[in-house]
Amino acid sequence: MKNYLMTPGPTPVPPEVSRDESLPVIHHRTKEFGALFNEVVEGMKYVCQTKNDIIMLTSSGTGGMEACVANLLSPGDKALVINTGVFGERWFKIIKAFGLEPIEIKEDWGNAVDIKKVEKTLKEEPEIKAVFTTLTETSTGVVNDIKSLGQIVSKTKAVLVVDAISGLGAQELKTDDWKVDVVVAGSQKGLMIPPGLAAICVSEKAWKLVENSKLPKFYFNFLTGRASIKKGQTPYTPAVSLFMALRKALEMIKKEGVDNVFARHQKLARATRAGVKALGLEIFAQAPCDAVTSVKVPEGIDGEKLKEMLRLEYGMAIAGGQKDLKGKIFRVAHLGYMEMFDTISVIAGLEIVLAKLGYKLELGKGVAAVEKELSK
Amino acid sequence: MKNYLMTPGPTPVPPEVSRDESLPVIHHRTKEFGALFNEVVEGMKYVCQTKNDIIMLTSSGTGGMEACVANLLSPGDKALVINTGVFGERWFKIIKAFGLEPIEIKEDWGNAVDIKKVEKTLKEEPEIKAVFTTLTETSTGVVNDIKSLGQIVSKTKAVLVVDAISGLGAQELKTDDWKVDVVVAGSQKGLMIPPGLAAICVSEKAWKLVENSKLPKFYFNFLTGRASIKKGQTPYTPAVSLFMALRKALEMIKKEGVDNVFARHQKLARATRAGVKALGLEIFAQAPCDAVTSVKVPEGIDGEKLKEMLRLEYGMAIAGGQKDLKGKIFRVAHLGYMEMFDTISVIAGLEIVLAKLGYKLELGKGVAAVEKELSK
Repeated sequence: MKNYLMTPGPTPVPPEVSRDESLPVIHHRTKEFGALFNEVVEGMKYVCQTKNDIIMLTSSGTGGMEACVANLLSPGDKALVINTGVFGERWFKIIKAFGLEPIEIKEDWGNAVDIKKVEKTLKEEPEIKAVFTTLTETSTGVVNDIKSLGQIVSKTKAVLVVDAISGLGAQELKTDDWKVDVVVAGSQKGLMIPPGLAAICVSEKAWKLVENSKLPKFYFNFLTGRASIKKGQTPYTPAVSLFMALRKALEMIKKEGVDNVFARHQKLARATRAGVKALGLEIFAQAPCDAVTSVKVPEGIDGEKLKEMLRLEYGMAIAGGQKDLKGKIFRVAHLGYMEMFDTISVIAGLEIVLAKLGYKLELGKGVAAVEKELSK
Repeated sequence: MKNYLMTPGPTPVPPEVSRDESLPVIHHRTKEFGALFNEVVEGMKYVCQTKNDIIMLTSSGTGGMEACVANLLSPGDKALVINTGVFGERWFKIIKAFGLEPIEIKEDWGNAVDIKKVEKTLKEEPEIKAVFTTLTETSTGVVNDIKSLGQIVSKTKAVLVVDAISGLGAQELKTDDWKVDVVVAGSQKGLMIPPGLAAICVSEKAWKLVENSKLPKFYFNFLTGRASIKKGQTPYTPAVSLFMALRKALEMIKKEGVDNVFARHQKLARATRAGVKALGLEIFAQAPCDAVTSVKVPEGIDGEKLKEMLRLEYGMAIAGGQKDLKGKIFRVAHLGYMEMFDTISVIAGLEIVLAKLGYKLELGKGVAAVEKELSK
């Protein structure tokens, strides 16, 4: 069966990227790897819109998140976590695992963070060292207003740490202009390569915290990472084949132009929303992002069955809801190597399967709405 | 230029493994990935010769080492480190980074550990919780006697933790028979795939320590890892394409038979030693392993230049010495996807380059010795 990967990570890998991934492995302590490393770092700076240092890690995005916590904080530090979904909550869990007690602003899932609450907390707690938040919250389909958070946090002594794992390369993020201190990215989302790499941008303000951090770390140590950058290396053996894939993917992003990449995601997200609304379905996110669209499962329909049917009968993988949202929402990505016919296909797939499950709809109506939106 | 990768990791990737690595990425929360995960875990158990649980991590081998430290120990614990080279020393550094003060048995580099010293230390320090050592010490080419260490350590309350990153699939290691509690493996050595995955076997005795460990960890947490195994998953997004590569590589190892794989490495290591000796060169390791052969750079020859010339003029990558051994030794791997003509090629390459550098030798004499050894 032909497979269609419409999940918010992993996302489809372009054939030219797969090809480069399977090229012969080169040794990581050579000038050849140094050139590859530098190209990847420069490409990451372009996508992140930053002049800051980039640390490359061989790990999933969660490893990158742990690295931020372990490198920025020290025992007893105050930290603020913005919880707008599973991945905001993950910041909380990681910080707790390191023995700290973070302050939490928790929004009802489906909402973005209320900026005023953050402003108030930072005033009440001037000792907060770092604010941890999420660009696009994959679990709910929400985008947080990072630009406004940057304006607020940059006026305090705290650094702003943004999990952009699912958002980077899909949703606008101007790291330097918006005064974001730390950005975490993962490879298997907007960057269009398989999972296994994380990247972290670190600002000057953040490096000061890193230099004084007392939490234990070794593999994820940013200071060791920074020392290796000059040599065009990573401290420990990197996932060389994923670096080769990432070089090609970054080349493709640069060729398209990062603003065009964002515009494409925005167009597909709008079209997806128009398509599901035309089927009488409701968008779950109050502030929907451009990486993934979350849709409420209509009454009387089994959300897990919907997902399974699409995958087993038609080869199309979408995501269900996580944790409390399991069975209540489904999620469709328009992330990475995606174009209009991918969006049309997923709406068509939903029409077919929803109709089979007994949901009343007019076949083709969702697709028509997508086409209308895409023709604008 | 055609490239020949003769370094002790990364090692050459078989074409059929590269092909599987570049297959379309599948989602990691599906039955399809579950089947892949289970096949990989079963294959790893076969190579490790164990019935114990296997934790799969997306990280380099060093990440796997840190995971062992963070999951086995608690603040204030006594731990013993056996330092027979750069990678034994790495155990020491990781444990220090987590705020503990390990006891160290340090041998002159080039020697294996003296088992009696370990026995003595364990008697003097009965509170030692874990003994950290190395199967094949890549930096010196030495193999430690893990079987004897297993006999000694298993009689104490301590667990035996073996870094088999460069040794697994090259040097005999009977995890269960030899009473090894924890084995760490990396993907880019004997397992013949690119870097990016680590695997850790954990015995029942070791799980008791894990369940009581108080050192901070999140991404590397073995308990979260164990809970996911039942679902055929990893707690966080795994490097899916490397899993696909590893399945194929493990299939190849199983087809050849793990004992035949060891015998092949032993044959190539012996032949390499015969070849370099025939050229009047001296083996550096006192107890040479089957994964990599370390050779003293002869007087008057620039070891770094030797390495660079081989790579730049002939496309053949060998390794130099690390740290204190830089310029003093060079290292040739016979690790993973290697056969007799690879060994013949490396000896021929050494002959050509050494002669160019002014070392007195008879061209072909080393190769003749290799051929003689291989014909036995």
